[in-house]
Amino acid sequence: MKADVVWTNAYVLPMTGDNGGLFADGAVAIKGNKIIAVGKTQDVLREVQAEEQIDAEGKLLMPGLIDAHIHSSYAIVRGVAQDMDNWMQKGVWPWMKYMDLKDQQAGSVMNIIEGVRAGTTTFADYDANMSSLLESYASIGVRVHAAEMINEMPKDIGDLPVGELYPLDPSIGEQKLQANIQLYEKWHGAENSRISVMFGPQGPDMMSLDLLKQVEREAVRYDTNLHMHVCQGDREILQLEKRYGKRSIPFLEENNLLNSRLIAVHLTEATEEETKQAAKSGAKMINCAGSIAIIDGIVPPVEVFTQAGGTAALGSDQAPGNNGNNMFNEMKFAAILNKVKARDPKVFPALKALKMATIEAAKVHGLDHHIGSLEAGKKADMLVIDTREPTLSPVLLYPVENVIANLVYAARGEEVKDVIVDGRFIMKDRVMQHIDQAKAMQALQYRAEKLAEKVKA
Amino acid sequence: MKADVVWTNAYVLPMTGDNGGLFADGAVAIKGNKIIAVGKTQDVLREVQAEEQIDAEGKLLMPGLIDAHIHSSYAIVRGVAQDMDNWMQKGVWPWMKYMDLKDQQAGSVMNIIEGVRAGTTTFADYDANMSSLLESYASIGVRVHAAEMINEMPKDIGDLPVGELYPLDPSIGEQKLQANIQLYEKWHGAENSRISVMFGPQGPDMMSLDLLKQVEREAVRYDTNLHMHVCQGDREILQLEKRYGKRSIPFLEENNLLNSRLIAVHLTEATEEETKQAAKSGAKMINCAGSIAIIDGIVPPVEVFTQAGGTAALGSDQAPGNNGNNMFNEMKFAAILNKVKARDPKVFPALKALKMATIEAAKVHGLDHHIGSLEAGKKADMLVIDTREPTLSPVLLYPVENVIANLVYAARGEEVKDVIVDGRFIMKDRVMQHIDQAKAMQALQYRAEKLAEKVKA
Repeated sequence: MKADVVWTNAYVLPMTGDNGGLFADGAVAIKGNKIIAVGKTQDVLREVQAEEQIDAEGKLLMPGLIDAHIHSSYAIVRGVAQDMDNWMQKGVWPWMKYMDLKDQQAGSVMNIIEGVRAGTTTFADYDANMSSLLESYASIGVRVHAAEMINEMPKDIGDLPVGELYPLDPSIGEQKLQANIQLYEKWHGAENSRISVMFGPQGPDMMSLDLLKQVEREAVRYDTNLHMHVCQGDREILQLEKRYGKRSIPFLEENNLLNSRLIAVHLTEATEEETKQAAKSGAKMINCAGSIAIIDGIVPPVEVFTQAGGTAALGSDQAPGNNGNNMFNEMKFAAILNKVKARDPKVFPALKALKMATIEAAKVHGLDHHIGSLEAGKKADMLVIDTREPTLSPVLLYPVENVIANLVYAARGEEVKDVIVDGRFIMKDRVMQHIDQAKAMQALQYRAEKLAEKVKA
Repeated sequence: MKADVVWTNAYVLPMTGDNGGLFADGAVAIKGNKIIAVGKTQDVLREVQAEEQIDAEGKLLMPGLIDAHIHSSYAIVRGVAQDMDNWMQKGVWPWMKYMDLKDQQAGSVMNIIEGVRAGTTTFADYDANMSSLLESYASIGVRVHAAEMINEMPKDIGDLPVGELYPLDPSIGEQKLQANIQLYEKWHGAENSRISVMFGPQGPDMMSLDLLKQVEREAVRYDTNLHMHVCQGDREILQLEKRYGKRSIPFLEENNLLNSRLIAVHLTEATEEETKQAAKSGAKMINCAGSIAIIDGIVPPVEVFTQAGGTAALGSDQAPGNNGNNMFNEMKFAAILNKVKARDPKVFPALKALKMATIEAAKVHGLDHHIGSLEAGKKADMLVIDTREPTLSPVLLYPVENVIANLVYAARGEEVKDVIVDGRFIMKDRVMQHIDQAKAMQALQYRAEKLAEKVKA
């Protein structure tokens, strides 16, 4: 069998089976955008004739990480809304009000770079003006599952006193729904299928029930997911109770919106019963551990959700409130915050966190036939990680295997040396391959300063 | 005034005053091992004539970080004791039993490298055979406040059933106390005062009261600190209750051991009242946020301690249980875990975490006349951090200053480009200057594999 590249003599963590399947002296061969062989070096070398052979001794090969929920454009206001109450209304919205498309693009590009440098190969981005943001995803070369953020919220919503009902504007909603439909028509399946599209209602509180039902109908028509904030904060519950006399989960259930098409983001304020109900409905959950802890001081009920049989993934959410978009950060926070919540160090072991950033995240987004593990036939989205960095040293396989624990609890992201997406190097020896990083940072700083001028005024 | 080096055009975060004192267009000048000027670039350039001028545009200058509690040698068993109960007895001790001096040294060197790469310039190390470990500190060139770990515990203590009283051996205690005294005599003030020594009883449970009082007398005689685990886990409380019928804080208080000489590490199991009592006694506290969360699922009462007027610092503890020794990790975990504990995002703001890794940590260790802030007259322990990294971008000073929030909540450690200790480059452009990192990692891996063989057998 002909291969383009084969990496040999590496530790391989394919993220298959119950325990991740780690083995030493391994090899991975790719051809085009596909993995064609994974196994012991001598077995793979017997099977394939590769154009290029890379000796990966001391390296770990594993699937690319999946950031299951991110608002990439917000990165332009990284760090402006910290250590405060009413984060969204008082911290973020005053900046959003003045953000234009170029600000969004600059923020998004920085966030993609940050993610790739920490091993993220797939981004589930959920934002306004997504079609413009996808241009950067396409040129940088990563994988994205995108949604237009649909709401009926006027641009000056930040001026509304905290606690008052949002004044919904149906004309905004209609325009944003159309934008999501156009996004699907234009981009779904583009870039060799690296880009796929879902629908993105911003939350049950931020639009009318009519519009929400209309979005669901479109998601059914296109047979894709509904990616939506659910129980994302007390403000959402408050809006729903004022508007419908119901909390979010019962509201969705009654309107036939709680089902396997739904990717429910956060569930911060969901009760234990509501969480179980969501899990049993077949809806998926995304846990943004770092973001919700910093914004609300809360550990969402992901442990309850997964124990009830639900499929869940990790997401980094947005920069102003987290503030990094680094899946190593998310894995460690998800594990440790849940240990603290349960006051039990056995809860949420490292392997669980790693699965929720790889294979389980792929399932949540309906992409597990393509990504999430290193297996022959899947897309070649792979990380080459240096185990000789202090954080991953020593590597021990017996009597205790310490690699997964150190990936989750010690690694910082910089251990990732090469990032391969769809068979192509996106980062090589920590240098971004398809974007000028320094120039992107300079552009970001310039636009952020201009934006700050407007906010000040 | 003559200077050796002046850095100009930088953001300077001196960690002075209430708010850290951040300013733009700043300069820092050093001569020998001292800072001689900190201020606006034009003012400093008017004041000093420097041999070398470094244009630090886009860089941030700040004091080196202080890791107020670390067991560096344990890094050789990074990741072997995760997601488990009875972490110390069942996870770590089976390995410690077979660790020899060379294993310890290899682990310690790796931990120092890991710390420096994430901006740690001062390590408060607390370990057995400390005199040998100090040789690495001396050659790598960082600052250390060291203690010999004194206990009366036999080497095969890991075989003891969980919950049984430790069989204390006075001959071990006497030998370890002598080692701490010799450590002081040999090393205190060495390496241009980069090395200082304190006393290190391992915990009130791990030695007789007689020995503990004797250690205190030696600490008084040498006028130095007592660095001790206090209320470090339920196992300690259990041992004390069985032995003396008292919990740790009342036991120390009654024996005149709760005073300003004591640096109490962890206080994991201290009640609110005990915590306040410790704070009011003048004892200092060290909070190892990441370590205690992962080992016990607990957030120690550092918020109560500091609200009661106590001075506290952050420490990374040991690698098998944390698992990193990175103060950016500690700052973020300390802040976020305390927000979650209080269910309030306003609790433990970023600035508080940053102070506890710099100036407050210097106070805890009685070193604030020398380090902890960038001020003329202090030792030149300084970090040069690249703000053009995605995690620290953008830099905004108005209308919201986002630098401190991003240092604490977004930075990973790799943003630190240069590390200067005592006026000398220890790391330059991320290359360690006084140790061959690759060779150290190779040695560590070799020794860890040998150690694993012994544990397996």
